[in-house]
Amino acid sequence: MLALTSLRYFRTAMGKRVCIVGSGNWGSAIAKLAGLNAATNPLFEKNVNMWVYEEMVEGRKLTEIINQDHENVKYLPGVKLPENVIAVPELVDAAKDADLFIFVIPHQFIARTVATMKGHVKEGAAAISLIKGINITDSGLGLISDEIREALGIDVSVLMGANIANEVARDQFCESTVGGFGENAKTFKALFQRPTFRVSISEDPKTVELCGALKNIVACGAGFCDGLGLGDNTKAAIIRLGLMEMMDFCKVFLSEGEVKNQTFMESCGVADLITTCYGGRNRKVSEAFAKTGKSLDELEKEMLNGQKLQGCVLKTLAQLITFSKRVEKGPETARELQGVLTNKKISPERFPLFTSVFKCCYEGAPVADFLKALENHPAHGN
Amino acid sequence: MLALTSLRYFRTAMGKRVCIVGSGNWGSAIAKLAGLNAATNPLFEKNVNMWVYEEMVEGRKLTEIINQDHENVKYLPGVKLPENVIAVPELVDAAKDADLFIFVIPHQFIARTVATMKGHVKEGAAAISLIKGINITDSGLGLISDEIREALGIDVSVLMGANIANEVARDQFCESTVGGFGENAKTFKALFQRPTFRVSISEDPKTVELCGALKNIVACGAGFCDGLGLGDNTKAAIIRLGLMEMMDFCKVFLSEGEVKNQTFMESCGVADLITTCYGGRNRKVSEAFAKTGKSLDELEKEMLNGQKLQGCVLKTLAQLITFSKRVEKGPETARELQGVLTNKKISPERFPLFTSVFKCCYEGAPVADFLKALENHPAHGN
Repeated sequence: MLALTSLRYFRTAMGKRVCIVGSGNWGSAIAKLAGLNAATNPLFEKNVNMWVYEEMVEGRKLTEIINQDHENVKYLPGVKLPENVIAVPELVDAAKDADLFIFVIPHQFIARTVATMKGHVKEGAAAISLIKGINITDSGLGLISDEIREALGIDVSVLMGANIANEVARDQFCESTVGGFGENAKTFKALFQRPTFRVSISEDPKTVELCGALKNIVACGAGFCDGLGLGDNTKAAIIRLGLMEMMDFCKVFLSEGEVKNQTFMESCGVADLITTCYGGRNRKVSEAFAKTGKSLDELEKEMLNGQKLQGCVLKTLAQLITFSKRVEKGPETARELQGVLTNKKISPERFPLFTSVFKCCYEGAPVADFLKALENHPAHGN
Repeated sequence: MLALTSLRYFRTAMGKRVCIVGSGNWGSAIAKLAGLNAATNPLFEKNVNMWVYEEMVEGRKLTEIINQDHENVKYLPGVKLPENVIAVPELVDAAKDADLFIFVIPHQFIARTVATMKGHVKEGAAAISLIKGINITDSGLGLISDEIREALGIDVSVLMGANIANEVARDQFCESTVGGFGENAKTFKALFQRPTFRVSISEDPKTVELCGALKNIVACGAGFCDGLGLGDNTKAAIIRLGLMEMMDFCKVFLSEGEVKNQTFMESCGVADLITTCYGGRNRKVSEAFAKTGKSLDELEKEMLNGQKLQGCVLKTLAQLITFSKRVEKGPETARELQGVLTNKKISPERFPLFTSVFKCCYEGAPVADFLKALENHPAHGN
């Protein structure tokens, strides 16, 4: 008994403390994996903090529900969370003394969140971002991991893959990719890997992260395909051409030498793209968009139950790509993007799928014409 | 009028004569594309012969139905064929004076078919194979294109891609890959390419052809996934790991230097794999296999309406891969494969997905254990 107590004390003293920043659908699913591993692997402190933005659910605080019933009834109903996952309503409390941060909040909240955390993060801590999105910054394309890294001064890895949250939470076999380096990447792999959640490490984290953002554009095209009543051949062509544009885009926006082709063959690449083009919410809403002609805003409200369409990526990317066209249209938009587009290789002709999706979504182009844009795709070559 | 007649004569005299060897579902769909192009492109003679294995359909000869009603009512009902596609019941007649042969018959009929054609093929003719399959030969792995080339002494390209026949025949947008070289590859591209059927040329024809065969193994795994009630994450993982094994297999069986990674990103690679894992018949039968526990032979009869399960590839490949195990089992099987397996790098551990599919299909392993085999896949690396 004494030995056991000592062991527990030792583990508490030495194990890395984990803080999950976010508690939505994906955050809760990942909390289950991290909680299960932290409970048994002495590399980690047993209790895992999960920052929960407090809200009332049927008269009770969500943090109380999670801590008493061990279920996030609002965002991951029907799945039991390990009892060592502790919901904490204050971000600064949740982050206290943490060695490992898992960022899993919507893109639009990241700036505010890291601002709150600033000055409350232990030196030598490391983070991993599960957030899909990109920023436009003065110096070019901005990754979410860069935003976290710059704000908090810590190492930031990323986790991306074919990981629809509800399926992960129900222990359905899948794979995922940690993009990162050295011990931190290995530690995060150990934190997430389960018998049914197989993690590979890629030392190409920027590409891994961009894949997670860009796939959402392709998924809109896949949704159009479904909305137009087309079959698996067309869907496969859209996925393939989308993958080609993702590869080309990464090579243009990152420096070509740092982009590894193999990264697109990892779970974060082709596999996540497939999952998203068959099962994701961008696909679903885009299918309805093609069928009903309603606006995306309207469909988002009707169909996503409070979740957001992952459209910010689409807008941002498409703006970059259609820059040359927009210059003609008006100087405001042009100015906004001027800092970014020093690279003249970007043109709508180079990214016909991305561009066409954008035009259908935001410029009133008819969805029926979407495939016309792919007929003479540069990927068809000779 | 005179000018038009002369022009027609000129075209008849100069255009390449096309013969389609086969008239099943895919053969009829490709006849539509080739017929439409031959009708307008002076590179080809207008009339396209299609060898049709004669059979009676509701009291009429199938060739007569095709030539009078311009529809293959048995294998591609509901789709009009161009009037310049001419059904010919005798293979030797169909092949007479042809410059271009399109082979699109089931794998098991190829030996007999080329034997019949031998001595009736024009010098300088070229062929393209649309057949999915592989052979075991004394000297190792045998491609169908090699079998045609050796029997007839002509150049043989291949056409593979995400091309479910019924969707192609209904003009749904898709892509395809010609594997071949020089003028012949370009000629076949011109023969098949349509506004909704976009053809790329790959100068890596052996890999293109192997992709078309190997995808059928992965599709069985995808069917198991569906039969087990698992979702898009798992399906995407199976597709990705299958693609990794396809790449590795090609590099082992062809010489590594001649296999281009880019080939797996073409329509014949990742796109065909996706299509087949969502829509193909191997997937469908394997789903039922997982759900019902009936034998594959039984399900083939029940579900495929006379079509064959593309299982020969699976059996052949799996035999190669499980060689080391089979050596222990009995000398007969070992001897049969001895010529092939000079390459000792082949082991079940290297191809866990292929091997596990085979064990489930033909050795009574429970389908529920299929995913267990993927947990420690070599593609997961570190």
